[in-house]
Amino acid sequence: MISNKMKSLVSNSSIIRAMFEEGKRLSEIYGEENVFDYSIGNPNVEPPESIKKVISEILDEEKPNYVHGYMNNAGYEDVRDDISAFLNKKHDLDLSRNNIVMTCGAAGGLNIILKSILNPDDEVITFAPYFGEYKNYVQNFNGKLVISPTDTETFEPDLKTLSSVITSKTKALILNNPNNPTGVVYSKEVIQALANLLSEKQKELNTTIYLISDEPYREIVYDNIEVPCLLKYYPNTFIGYSYSKSLSLPGERIGYVVINTSMDGFDEVTSALNIANRILGFVNAPSLFQRVIAKSLDAEVDVSIYEKNRDLLYNHLISLGFTCVKPQGAFYLFPKSPIEDDVKFCADAKQFNLLLVPGSAFGCPGHVRLAYCISYEKIKNSFPAFDKLAVLYNL
Amino acid sequence: MISNKMKSLVSNSSIIRAMFEEGKRLSEIYGEENVFDYSIGNPNVEPPESIKKVISEILDEEKPNYVHGYMNNAGYEDVRDDISAFLNKKHDLDLSRNNIVMTCGAAGGLNIILKSILNPDDEVITFAPYFGEYKNYVQNFNGKLVISPTDTETFEPDLKTLSSVITSKTKALILNNPNNPTGVVYSKEVIQALANLLSEKQKELNTTIYLISDEPYREIVYDNIEVPCLLKYYPNTFIGYSYSKSLSLPGERIGYVVINTSMDGFDEVTSALNIANRILGFVNAPSLFQRVIAKSLDAEVDVSIYEKNRDLLYNHLISLGFTCVKPQGAFYLFPKSPIEDDVKFCADAKQFNLLLVPGSAFGCPGHVRLAYCISYEKIKNSFPAFDKLAVLYNL
Repeated sequence: MISNKMKSLVSNSSIIRAMFEEGKRLSEIYGEENVFDYSIGNPNVEPPESIKKVISEILDEEKPNYVHGYMNNAGYEDVRDDISAFLNKKHDLDLSRNNIVMTCGAAGGLNIILKSILNPDDEVITFAPYFGEYKNYVQNFNGKLVISPTDTETFEPDLKTLSSVITSKTKALILNNPNNPTGVVYSKEVIQALANLLSEKQKELNTTIYLISDEPYREIVYDNIEVPCLLKYYPNTFIGYSYSKSLSLPGERIGYVVINTSMDGFDEVTSALNIANRILGFVNAPSLFQRVIAKSLDAEVDVSIYEKNRDLLYNHLISLGFTCVKPQGAFYLFPKSPIEDDVKFCADAKQFNLLLVPGSAFGCPGHVRLAYCISYEKIKNSFPAFDKLAVLYNL
Repeated sequence: MISNKMKSLVSNSSIIRAMFEEGKRLSEIYGEENVFDYSIGNPNVEPPESIKKVISEILDEEKPNYVHGYMNNAGYEDVRDDISAFLNKKHDLDLSRNNIVMTCGAAGGLNIILKSILNPDDEVITFAPYFGEYKNYVQNFNGKLVISPTDTETFEPDLKTLSSVITSKTKALILNNPNNPTGVVYSKEVIQALANLLSEKQKELNTTIYLISDEPYREIVYDNIEVPCLLKYYPNTFIGYSYSKSLSLPGERIGYVVINTSMDGFDEVTSALNIANRILGFVNAPSLFQRVIAKSLDAEVDVSIYEKNRDLLYNHLISLGFTCVKPQGAFYLFPKSPIEDDVKFCADAKQFNLLLVPGSAFGCPGHVRLAYCISYEKIKNSFPAFDKLAVLYNL
């Protein structure tokens, strides 16, 4: 009945989403307070209080047919003006509304970029561990995701390996900074070296290789670390941004794509993105929330809550004998599994109502992901379960 | 730079959207009051006043992380319960939340259905004239749109022609009821005959043929006409519904898909739709508006405004000598072009700041579409322009 592509997806459906559903099931059996669901990146930190006020203002001041109506497929002109002005000020850039396409979150953004650039069998590279959906997004357009492993001691990109997998079929590289699932933030030096390599490869192969920077976690960083603005390092750069995490609005599906001004074929690419937004069925990013965002550019969530969670959970896991790179961004820990079989380890954790996601789901077996965007109390209450898990594994 | 598929789309971009942009350009030159933009189906009737109140209530009463957060990819369980209960009462059905997937409008709904069912080169049939985006939606998944002409005197489906284009490659038929661009509403008798034909063909060819009913205009009907509920006529039916027109919320991208309980492979199909919603980048339908809809199931826009517009414009065009099927639904007129070359006719109309869309954009040359979801005053003010156009064509 369903398509062949879908058949394999139905049988191997997202383990993260399956865990999320499993968490709800276990909560019904054992009570929510006794289930420790580290499976999904659903922010627990509240959206800024201003959001509610801004919505009321818009509904009071603007005409309903305008607020809830169609606009250009790229989004309202004034919203794109405001976002480009905000980015110009923040990063010292020279963007205009023409560089911005409003999207249904970063997931929508990545899909319209890939729809616009991929021919069948084109290759898109990403570093492992990677957000598992990238594979689906690339396959939506009959492309092939090519995995370039990182050094699992640091999760920094390995440029030598990257260089070896770039071919004339390479159409793009997806970079996730800060990274989901490791929480690692790539430095200016890493980005510069990466940009140099891509530029050399473009010349050598006489092709265009796009850099797609997936940045939903840009604002969720700790220890005063800075996330470089990739537009300054490499001309053929797209940024996929989302307010899902930065304003805790993941259900609203609101974000944008930035197309670098110096990109090869800028006009053709922006036209293609507009059309892709329309014909993939998004039509436009949700209208009210476009207008909310334009009035919330300076708003932020309380990132210190995530930082406290990180410290609490990281320190406890380390004290139990787990090995883990200390993340400087996003809200995930990606410790080593005590056994190579990360799926078995997660199954064992579930005995104690601990829901973790196997690293295999991110192309990096032997690790597990913990989303610590849950309450501080809940993390503390989960410690006895982790302690039992550590005992089970003789840590 | 961009993909080959996109190249042809960029050069043949949507004429409707191009007209919409042209309307804005002409308005800047001649003043908005002197441009008569009949190009796009952007509802002019205001959303129900209750929408604003409902939004306030939700923001006052529910937790922001819940209202703006992730939920099941199919949508909030309680929202799907409320919608299925509403449909059960209205149409005497037996649906549950499992029959409903919340989508980013009908465009999102159609795309996830097609993503779920189409293998490359599968054929999807639709009757001409048809909403031009169907072709793009089908091609997104490497399918082929097959056009079955209707009788242009009535725009009723011609089942003999339909029968002749159904093959073993036919995976689905998209039906748009009420129809865009003709405004024709298919009767129970027509639907029953169509369902019988599809059932026979399924048996004969030993295949599954899905009926996809695209129903964004279901509520926009006149003369007390009834739109049949296709779930009762044919087991393998999907309904794609949207609140874009029925509640004048086109920018918010909110709608749903109904999967008929008696559909072949129901469980597999619903799983596939959930996954398609996620991986195409929608993730879920916008969360706040899911909750708004659940509290607005009885809300409606003032359809009598469109009915008055229809009568005003239809009567004037007829008085000028145009030929046109009188529509009983949607907010479009689809008169014959006085010359076969509808593109030239629309270009001539533009001289008088009249923006019409050629029938060719709907697979039906020799006609033009007028979207009369604009103000009554504007329609009246456009009469001198139509009069000049009639003189130019010696009508």
